[in-house]
Amino acid sequence: MDFMQFVRDIPDFPQEGVLFRDITPVLQNAEALHAAVDRFCDILKKETFDYVLGPESRGFIFGVPVAYAMHKGFIPVRKPGKLPGKVITQSYDLEYGSNSLEMHADALKPGDRVVVVDDLIATGGTTKAICELVEQLGAHIVSLNFFIELEALKGRQLLSNYTVNSIITY
Amino acid sequence: MDFMQFVRDIPDFPQEGVLFRDITPVLQNAEALHAAVDRFCDILKKETFDYVLGPESRGFIFGVPVAYAMHKGFIPVRKPGKLPGKVITQSYDLEYGSNSLEMHADALKPGDRVVVVDDLIATGGTTKAICELVEQLGAHIVSLNFFIELEALKGRQLLSNYTVNSIITY
Repeated sequence: MDFMQFVRDIPDFPQEGVLFRDITPVLQNAEALHAAVDRFCDILKKETFDYVLGPESRGFIFGVPVAYAMHKGFIPVRKPGKLPGKVITQSYDLEYGSNSLEMHADALKPGDRVVVVDDLIATGGTTKAICELVEQLGAHIVSLNFFIELEALKGRQLLSNYTVNSIITY
Repeated sequence: MDFMQFVRDIPDFPQEGVLFRDITPVLQNAEALHAAVDRFCDILKKETFDYVLGPESRGFIFGVPVAYAMHKGFIPVRKPGKLPGKVITQSYDLEYGSNSLEMHADALKPGDRVVVVDDLIATGGTTKAICELVEQLGAHIVSLNFFIELEALKGRQLLSNYTVNSIITY
């Protein structure tokens, strides 16, 4: 399926000069949504892993159906203060300031194998923080999987220690 | 499946005196996640509808896999400023102050039939705002579907004009 025909370009969002790739038309079209999830599954079918992990909130969009379709568990990575149990935290830099992500401290044990699923890779900063959370618990990142890759922002270089897969590239 | 065995009770979260029902162990267990999504599908299989609609961010968790499994489209309802296109907005009251939700203005057309999927119904305030967004665009709410219902908070009464389904009740 030509997924790009369903991605809507919105100029100057969230700020002037940025061209936002809006995936809501992909989600809204039943065939496109189904084909997108199946495409992730196709990429992952030869891998051995225990869990799909996705960051709040757009990482939940493809991460949970991929976990469902492949009969795996799903682990959410969330913004600070959202997960109710004992958490581990990882900060990452933004253009101005920084942000952080949390994962339940008992979500993974040493040797667990996880794949990360998210809608988009830009600079890769968020994804790198996720990898650090996973590795803090002694678990192993099998691959990082994105619906959209914004090649110009070089996320793949920041994540060069990992296998990075993307479905469509701009 | 006895889903309650996978729900973890966390006292005093997000504030003192609140007992939080944590569904992350449901998501993390491959069988429980699969069974939970299938249970939603079982509830919805006799209904005629076009789209599954889920609110950010925990509404994405069950909403998207249900849309995937039933070959429907998914429409996200999001917090203010997150959706990049032209939006409609609905405010709702919180215990102190208020909040609002947004949906793309072109997401639904008159006569479209939607089911709402979310992880939990408490007072029903968020869900009522979602119903108002859907009806503002002339579309029809077929049913409101939750993994957990907190019966004491009487969300079902606030939403008495609608069909409300829940999988587990406290």
